[in-house]
Amino acid sequence: MINDKKRPIRVVQYGLGPIGQGSARLILEKAKTGKLELVGAIDIDPDKAGKTVGSLVNASSDVVISSNANKVLDDTKPDVVVHTTSSFIPKVEEQLTQCILVGASIVSSTEELPYPFDRYPKIAERLHTLAKENRVTVLGTGVNPGYAMDVLALVATGVCTDVRSVTVQRRVDAGLRRQPLQNKVGAGITVEEFRRRQAEGGFGHIGLIESLRLVMHGLGWPIKKFSELLEPVISEVEVETPYLTVRPGRVAGIKHTAEAYLNDHLAVSLDLRMYVGAQQPEDRVVVDGDPPINLVIEGGIFGDTATVAALVNAIPHVLNASPGLRTVADLPVPRCFLPS
Amino acid sequence: MINDKKRPIRVVQYGLGPIGQGSARLILEKAKTGKLELVGAIDIDPDKAGKTVGSLVNASSDVVISSNANKVLDDTKPDVVVHTTSSFIPKVEEQLTQCILVGASIVSSTEELPYPFDRYPKIAERLHTLAKENRVTVLGTGVNPGYAMDVLALVATGVCTDVRSVTVQRRVDAGLRRQPLQNKVGAGITVEEFRRRQAEGGFGHIGLIESLRLVMHGLGWPIKKFSELLEPVISEVEVETPYLTVRPGRVAGIKHTAEAYLNDHLAVSLDLRMYVGAQQPEDRVVVDGDPPINLVIEGGIFGDTATVAALVNAIPHVLNASPGLRTVADLPVPRCFLPS
Repeated sequence: MINDKKRPIRVVQYGLGPIGQGSARLILEKAKTGKLELVGAIDIDPDKAGKTVGSLVNASSDVVISSNANKVLDDTKPDVVVHTTSSFIPKVEEQLTQCILVGASIVSSTEELPYPFDRYPKIAERLHTLAKENRVTVLGTGVNPGYAMDVLALVATGVCTDVRSVTVQRRVDAGLRRQPLQNKVGAGITVEEFRRRQAEGGFGHIGLIESLRLVMHGLGWPIKKFSELLEPVISEVEVETPYLTVRPGRVAGIKHTAEAYLNDHLAVSLDLRMYVGAQQPEDRVVVDGDPPINLVIEGGIFGDTATVAALVNAIPHVLNASPGLRTVADLPVPRCFLPS
Repeated sequence: MINDKKRPIRVVQYGLGPIGQGSARLILEKAKTGKLELVGAIDIDPDKAGKTVGSLVNASSDVVISSNANKVLDDTKPDVVVHTTSSFIPKVEEQLTQCILVGASIVSSTEELPYPFDRYPKIAERLHTLAKENRVTVLGTGVNPGYAMDVLALVATGVCTDVRSVTVQRRVDAGLRRQPLQNKVGAGITVEEFRRRQAEGGFGHIGLIESLRLVMHGLGWPIKKFSELLEPVISEVEVETPYLTVRPGRVAGIKHTAEAYLNDHLAVSLDLRMYVGAQQPEDRVVVDGDPPINLVIEGGIFGDTATVAALVNAIPHVLNASPGLRTVADLPVPRCFLPS
């Protein structure tokens, strides 16, 4: 049962980039209920260290941001750390270990963490063992991976007697999002430039394969064969955003797909399109099952707010889960934590 | 983790009405994987006792149906009982107690069981205590209550930083369903007849208030004030189904709504319409939140198949849950169990 703690849940925010700032702001907002408390904040950026969280996120908080993670964690011994520093597991193992060792459960936005068991079996095993020893739960989540292309897909199959395949389509109009995202999907550049940057590994949504693995795992299907493809979406018309213009023939954004097979049968297909000018943005799950299910989030899920929400909403779930490295498929159905 | 048992999960089917027969058939189908086994079947109907499950559900099974529940449970000591006998908790407490006492976890279609803590606090406490003592989990679920108007509503809020209200609309075209359901919603009768039967308590969807309580509970909102209304839907045109004809001005079915308030603010609103001739059947969740969410299952969820699926899909969840009387809001996200 959530919300049955007598004292507030003590939270440290680890990482204060855009998502971390949103998380800190939301924690401070929800702290007004008296059920949650921001007790520490960590960021290595020298421009942020020494400032108060309140001054950084334009809210009321005199918690001072520190670049000394160990000191913050030791001094505060939080119940939960909301961790938002990097997309990649090798870069965060040491940070997660620090948190676990002071007895803190973790909700992390690290895109490789929602299903790390195949890509990083050794790190996953180390984190799982350490978390169990220290009686804490570690979870990777967010809107994608963590919800739109995995949890929703599993939920859609929950009333099916059988499932033959699951298709997830996420259409995001990058033109409605912040400028870094428009740049990240290559909006406005030439196809040649796209291919050049793609070859350098500079493009693509991180975590798509993690969603694929989560869905396969959740359905009990072994993942033996899978493929991934990243292509530019070419604009046929001129599109203008507040930040840039995409001329016809130029790149509007990305189409990133991943597919998993069971005995040469396409079992799970994920199709993510993020581009400026996308018509009818939506999140759609199509289950070829009994009964068939066609689940849609009309207009799509607005990612910037939703990622922050998914992290903070998981706080009670990690506190109540059995210790170890867990996935969103292991935890109770997500829902808003402490709505006003 | 599901499916990690070395031996098959041993299941008893308790109740072999239409839903119980569907459940038995599905268990037998999934038993082909070797991960599940139907080891017993109980029904008090003298026409069924003594027959094999196979002959009743047109499948391959020589499990003999018995009216002696205690003997079946004692002889088989199942891991899980799928229980489908009655909608009402007072009628099933003794049956559930029998199951718990032989160490079986339970998935039940009893419509009052998904959230029994307010309506039957003493029975709920007895079942919870007994389940914990016997290290088993007891769950009430189904498509509605248990999924369409509660789990989906909670899931829809999972990426919201805040929620002001949740509205759930379920539209079912009763004309596509089996005859008993068409009769149950009063299709074809006069408004006077509807009101007469309504006064006798003969109408309405059982479990709507349970869904309302589940959503409020899941969001951490205390349920202090709620209302419920059952009205006939009057047909404006003539509608024909394979079983009956509804003339203009006659009852086409029901509109059953329930609302819960927080300080005079409408917090959760459930609106269920089941009638013949319903256009555009769908399940819709509208979250007034940040971000707003508009989640739709296009065409709706076909209830007869889905109820059976929801029950069988919960089997691994009750086996892995912490002991006690639990709700679908406490358990991991639903998903299809053992898809082919």
